[in-house]
Amino acid sequence: MPKVAILGATGYTARELILLLLGHPQAEIVSVTSRQSSAGKIADSHPQLRGRLDLELSHFDLEQLLNLGVDTVFSCLPHAASAEVIRPIVEQGIRVIDFSADYRLDNVDTFEQWYGVTHPDPGQVGSVPYGLPELFRDDIQGAPLVANPGCFPTSVLLPIGPLLKHRLIADSPLIIDSKTGVSGGGRSPKPGFHFVECNESIRAYGIGSHRHAPEINQLLHRYSSVHADVVFTPHLAPMDRGILSTIYCQPQAGSSRQTVLDCLSDFYRDEPFVRIVDTPPATKQVTQTNFCDIAVSESAGFIVVTSVIDNLIKGASGLAVQNFNLMCGFEETTALVS
Amino acid sequence: MPKVAILGATGYTARELILLLLGHPQAEIVSVTSRQSSAGKIADSHPQLRGRLDLELSHFDLEQLLNLGVDTVFSCLPHAASAEVIRPIVEQGIRVIDFSADYRLDNVDTFEQWYGVTHPDPGQVGSVPYGLPELFRDDIQGAPLVANPGCFPTSVLLPIGPLLKHRLIADSPLIIDSKTGVSGGGRSPKPGFHFVECNESIRAYGIGSHRHAPEINQLLHRYSSVHADVVFTPHLAPMDRGILSTIYCQPQAGSSRQTVLDCLSDFYRDEPFVRIVDTPPATKQVTQTNFCDIAVSESAGFIVVTSVIDNLIKGASGLAVQNFNLMCGFEETTALVS
Amino acid sequence: MPKVAILGATGYTARELILLLLGHPQAEIVSVTSRQSSAGKIADSHPQLRGRLDLELSHFDLEQLLNLGVDTVFSCLPHAASAEVIRPIVEQGIRVIDFSADYRLDNVDTFEQWYGVTHPDPGQVGSVPYGLPELFRDDIQGAPLVANPGCFPTSVLLPIGPLLKHRLIADSPLIIDSKTGVSGGGRSPKPGFHFVECNESIRAYGIGSHRHAPEINQLLHRYSSVHADVVFTPHLAPMDRGILSTIYCQPQAGSSRQTVLDCLSDFYRDEPFVRIVDTPPATKQVTQTNFCDIAVSESAGFIVVTSVIDNLIKGASGLAVQNFNLMCGFEETTALVS
Amino acid sequence: MPKVAILGATGYTARELILLLLGHPQAEIVSVTSRQSSAGKIADSHPQLRGRLDLELSHFDLEQLLNLGVDTVFSCLPHAASAEVIRPIVEQGIRVIDFSADYRLDNVDTFEQWYGVTHPDPGQVGSVPYGLPELFRDDIQGAPLVANPGCFPTSVLLPIGPLLKHRLIADSPLIIDSKTGVSGGGRSPKPGFHFVECNESIRAYGIGSHRHAPEINQLLHRYSSVHADVVFTPHLAPMDRGILSTIYCQPQAGSSRQTVLDCLSDFYRDEPFVRIVDTPPATKQVTQTNFCDIAVSESAGFIVVTSVIDNLIKGASGLAVQNFNLMCGFEETTALVS
Repeated sequence: MPKVAILGATGYTARELILLLLGHPQAEIVSVTSRQSSAGKIADSHPQLRGRLDLELSHFDLEQLLNLGVDTVFSCLPHAASAEVIRPIVEQGIRVIDFSADYRLDNVDTFEQWYGVTHPDPGQVGSVPYGLPELFRDDIQGAPLVANPGCFPTSVLLPIGPLLKHRLIADSPLIIDSKTGVSGGGRSPKPGFHFVECNESIRAYGIGSHRHAPEINQLLHRYSSVHADVVFTPHLAPMDRGILSTIYCQPQAGSSRQTVLDCLSDFYRDEPFVRIVDTPPATKQVTQTNFCDIAVSESAGFIVVTSVIDNLIKGASGLAVQNFNLMCGFEETTALVS
Repeated sequence: MPKVAILGATGYTARELILLLLGHPQAEIVSVTSRQSSAGKIADSHPQLRGRLDLELSHFDLEQLLNLGVDTVFSCLPHAASAEVIRPIVEQGIRVIDFSADYRLDNVDTFEQWYGVTHPDPGQVGSVPYGLPELFRDDIQGAPLVANPGCFPTSVLLPIGPLLKHRLIADSPLIIDSKTGVSGGGRSPKPGFHFVECNESIRAYGIGSHRHAPEINQLLHRYSSVHADVVFTPHLAPMDRGILSTIYCQPQAGSSRQTVLDCLSDFYRDEPFVRIVDTPPATKQVTQTNFCDIAVSESAGFIVVTSVIDNLIKGASGLAVQNFNLMCGFEETTALVS
Repeated sequence: MPKVAILGATGYTARELILLLLGHPQAEIVSVTSRQSSAGKIADSHPQLRGRLDLELSHFDLEQLLNLGVDTVFSCLPHAASAEVIRPIVEQGIRVIDFSADYRLDNVDTFEQWYGVTHPDPGQVGSVPYGLPELFRDDIQGAPLVANPGCFPTSVLLPIGPLLKHRLIADSPLIIDSKTGVSGGGRSPKPGFHFVECNESIRAYGIGSHRHAPEINQLLHRYSSVHADVVFTPHLAPMDRGILSTIYCQPQAGSSRQTVLDCLSDFYRDEPFVRIVDTPPATKQVTQTNFCDIAVSESAGFIVVTSVIDNLIKGASGLAVQNFNLMCGFEETTALVS
Repeated sequence: MPKVAILGATGYTARELILLLLGHPQAEIVSVTSRQSSAGKIADSHPQLRGRLDLELSHFDLEQLLNLGVDTVFSCLPHAASAEVIRPIVEQGIRVIDFSADYRLDNVDTFEQWYGVTHPDPGQVGSVPYGLPELFRDDIQGAPLVANPGCFPTSVLLPIGPLLKHRLIADSPLIIDSKTGVSGGGRSPKPGFHFVECNESIRAYGIGSHRHAPEINQLLHRYSSVHADVVFTPHLAPMDRGILSTIYCQPQAGSSRQTVLDCLSDFYRDEPFVRIVDTPPATKQVTQTNFCDIAVSESAGFIVVTSVIDNLIKGASGLAVQNFNLMCGFEETTALVS
C-alpha cells in the first residue's frame, strides 16, 4: 500500500485531502507536516480527525520521508515554497502532486510576473503535466510530478476547453464571472474573511489582476491551440464552499446552444465526474463531491455556460486524489465516488 | 401632512416602506391592505412593527381611501393586479407610486409578451414617468403616477445610462451578471427559497428569460437613445438583501477606464444617493441604505463596472420614498438619510 | 447482497441515506417510493444523485417489494403513515428501520396524546428496540424492526443516559437547551423555513410542547430506570445541519465535573462514533459524519454538558445505517467511517 | 448643539453609534479617534460612511477635544484602556458614556479578578450609574459618567430584574443560555471568527468563565437586592447580529407563567423600547432597532423566558444614545425610533 505524506497539512485543502485518503483502500497517510507548528497532533488542527488519524505534525524532512518509505507526497504548501521542496523530493523518485501554482504555467516569465517571486525550480516549468484528467489524462498517467489545477481554472477549462478545441465558440469575448465560497481564501484569519465582513455580502475582487487568468489562458491554449484572452472576474460569496462560473461566449458561425450542448454531452459521456445537466446548476448539488455539473443556456445571442464544482474537492483535493489514482495506475474513481 | 395608504402590505418591500415612512415627518400611514388576509393587524404580519404601527389590514376599498383622505397610494401589488386598481385611484386625483412592472415599459406588446397577461390599463403604458430620479428627475417631479423601477434595472441603469448616453461604451456586447439576495424573490414560501435549498449555494436563474432584461433595454434607450440588447443573467446568492451587478462593456474608441470613471464622477457629483468608489463595492456597504455604490475596473480590454444597492431600499422602497418626495415637492432625501 | 427499499425518498434524510448506502458494499438500493410524486426519477428530486442512482420513484406496493426481493425497508414516512405500511412489511419477514416516531415510545397513550393521531399498529408499541446502539445494542442486533431515534433525543441520550444510570447527576432539574439547523424541519416550504425568515436569526420554538420531550423522558427511564422530567427547549439556528445540545444538570452528592467526565470517557472508550473532547464542540466538527462529540464543563455548581451531532447523519440516516449493520450482522461501522 | 467625540472609532459598535448619531438632531460628531491608525479617514474604515461623515481619524488628545468644544465623549475603547483616559476627561467636565466594563461592577476586586488587570481608576468603581434606563433611569439622568452595559447582561437584566425584585422567581437555579451573533466578538480577525470556522456552526464558549456572569450577578443584586448566582453560557451563532437569551427559572410558591407575564407587562407598559410578546421572539424582529422583545413560556414546571436584542444597538450603541439622551435631558427616544 502506497505510503503518503502531506506537506502543509493544517489548511482546508489538506483536511479534505486527509478525509478522502482515509477512505482510500490503497493509501496510508504516514506523515503530515506544518511549517509554523512547533508541535501538536493533526487532530488539534482539525478536530474532525480526532480518533481517525493519530499523527504528530512535524517539520518537513526529506530524510524522514525516505525512512518512512513514503512514495507519494501531496504538497499543500504556498507557491514558491512548494517548488523549493519538490525538486529534491522528485529527485528521490517520490511521486508528487503539487497543489501550488508552481508548475502549472507554460513559462517561468509569466509565473514570475504574476506571482512576484523568483521561481525556485525553473527548469521543469512548462513540462509538468497539468492535472486535469478530463483534458490531459494521458500526460498524467504514470507521471512522477503533477501540477494540481487552480480551482477557478478547473471550473472554466472543463466546459470551455472542448468548445474552443472544436471551434464552436469565438476566442473573444470570453467573459468569465466566477463566484466562490470563502474557503477558497484559505484558513488564515484576515479582515476580508472575518465572518461579519463576508456574511450577508457579495463582492468582486482581483478584477483584471487575479492569477488564475493567465492560468486559464495558457491552459486553454495548451489544450485547444487557441489563443484566448479571457476577462475573468472572481467574486466572494457568503458560503463555505463551491464555485459557480458563469461564462459568456459568442458562438462561431453555424454554432448554437444545441451544437455546444451536443459537443459537451459527447465529450463527457463516459467521464465519471462531469455531468451535463438541463438546468443551471446550484453549487450545492456538487458540494462534498468530485463532480463538475455544466449547463448550457443562451441569452441575446450569447451562449451562457454555467459550471459548478466544490472548490475544495473537484477544485483541489478530490482532483488531487483523481490524479494520484492515475499516477499510480489505480481505478480513477477510487475514494471519490461510491 | 399627506396621508398614505399601502396596498399589498404583507410583503418585504411593504415592510421596508412602512419602516421608512414611520421616519418621514411629512407622511402618515392611515391604511394598509392585503388581498389574502381575512383580518389581523399589520404587526401580526410584521412583528418588527409591534408598538410602532397599530393598523388593521383591510381589503382594498377606494371609497374608504377617499373617506380617510388618502392623498398618496403605494401599490406593492403584483403586476396586472396593480394596474387594475391604480387606474381608478389616479382618476380620483390620488398620487400613486406603483412597485409593479405595469407602467415601466414603453409599450403594451412588450409587457404582454414578457408578463403573459393582458394589461388592464394599456392606455397609460409608455407615458408614465420611470421613477429613477438620477436619470428622469424632471419627469417625476409633481407627477401623479410613477412607475417604481425594478431592482436589477436600478443597479444597471445608474452606472450604464450615462455611459451609453455619452457614447463611452459600445451598445454590444453589454453583459450584466447580477447577484441578488433572496428577499428579491418575495415572501411566499417556495421550494427554491426554502432555507436549506438556498443556503450555502449560488445559482443562476432565468438566463435569457428574466423580465428585467426588456426593462433594462427599453429604459437604456429611453434615456440614451441607444438601442442595446443586454445579456442579463441574475443569480441567487445566499443572503437576505443586496444586489451586485458586474457589468462588462467594451470601451468606444478613445474611451478608457479613466474616461468612464470621470464621466460617472461628474454625473453623480451632486447626487445624494450615488457614490463613485475606488474599490469594487461589497453589497454590505449599502445594506439598509438608499445608496448605490459604483466602481470602475478594467480587465483584458473590457471595462468592468460593479454596482451595489440594497434591493429592498434603493431597489424598491427607498427609491419609492425618494419618488414620493419628488412628487410631493419635499426635500428629496427626507426619511432616507440622516 | 441485501436489497433495500426506501419509502418516502424525496426528503433530506432519504437523500442522505441514499448517499450513505451507495457507499455500502453490502446493500443495493432497488426501490424508492414517494407518496406525492406522480412519476419522475429520484435524481429529479435530488440532483446530487444524477448519474449515481438511476431509479424511478414509485408508489409503495408491497407486492412489488416482494417481487424485487427486498429484504430491508427504510421508512422515511411521517408518523402514523409509517406504522400503517410497516406492519404488513414486517409480517412478510422484511427487516424495517423506521425513521418515524411510531415505535419509539413506551406506550400508545403517550404517543396518541403527543402526536394527536390514532396509532395504526398499537400492538407493537413499547416492544420495538430503540435504535441507539450505544445504549441498546443488544436489542438491535438481529431485530426485525427498529425504531430509529429522534435527532434531539440522540444528542441528549448519549451523554445523559450513562450519567443518570450511574446516578452521577440528579433527575431534576435537567435542562436541555438544543439548537438545530433548518434541515431538521424537513424539505416542505413553510413560512418559518423561508430563507429570509430563518437567515440571520435564531429563535426558540415548541417550548414545553415539543414531541421529543416525552421521547427523551421515556428512553432515559428505559435505559437508566430513573424518572426524569426534562425541560427541553429546541431552537432554530441559521444553518443547514447540526444539533448542539447544551445540558444543565446538578451533580449528585460526591459527583463533580471530573467524575462525570470519567464516567463518559470510560463508557465511550471503545465506541466508534462517540468522542469525548476537551473543548465545547462546534457542530461543524461533526458535519457529514456519524460522530457525536461530547464535552463536560461546569458553571456555578452545575455540570454543563455539550454534545453535537449532524442531525441528518447521527441524528437520522447514519444512525439508520448503523442499525442496519447491526440488524444484518455486518461490521457496525460499514459505510459510516473510513 | 452638543459636540461629541468617539474614542476607538474603527470597530462595529462605533460604526453603529456614528450611524445613529448622524440621525440625531442634537448631536454633532466632531472627532473620531483610533489607537492603531496612523492616519486615514473614518470612511476608509467604514465604507458605509462615505459621503456622510468626513472626518480624519486622530489619536486621542484631551487638549484637542477641549479646543473643539466637545461636551460628550463616547468611549469604545477596551477595558482598562478606557478608564485610563476617562478620568481626566470627566475631570474637565466632559460627559462620558463608557462602552467598556470598567465602571460596571460593584467593586474593584471583582473587576481585577475577572479582567486580569489593575484598574486604572479604582476610586469611582461602584458609584457610576449603570446605563440601563429601564432599571436605573433616575441614576442616569444628568449623570456626568455612565457605564454602558454589556450586551448579554442587557438581554438578561431586562426580563429578570423585575421578576427577582418582585420575588416571582427563585434566585437559584437561574440558568441563562444565550446565543449571540459574531459581531459581538469584535472586528479583529481571529481564527474563531474566520468565516469558514463560524459559518454553518454553533458552539458554546466561556462556560463558567465569561465576564458577563459577575456583571449579571452584581447588577441583579443592585437592582433587586437578591443574591443570585447565575449559570451563564454564551453561544456563538452563525449570524452577524442579535442576542437571544433563553432563561430558565423556577417560579416561587404562588407564582406561575401568568403572574410572571403580568409582572413584566405591567413593568414595561410605558417603556418605549421593551415589548412583551406572545410568541418566543426571533432575533431578527429586533435587528437594527433599540427594542428588547420578551416572551414568557413554561416547560415542565419551569418558567422559560426568552428575550432578544440587537447586540450592536440595544446591546451597545442604541443603549448608549438612550443614555446620552437621558444625561443631556433630551427626549429619551431621540434618534432611536421614528
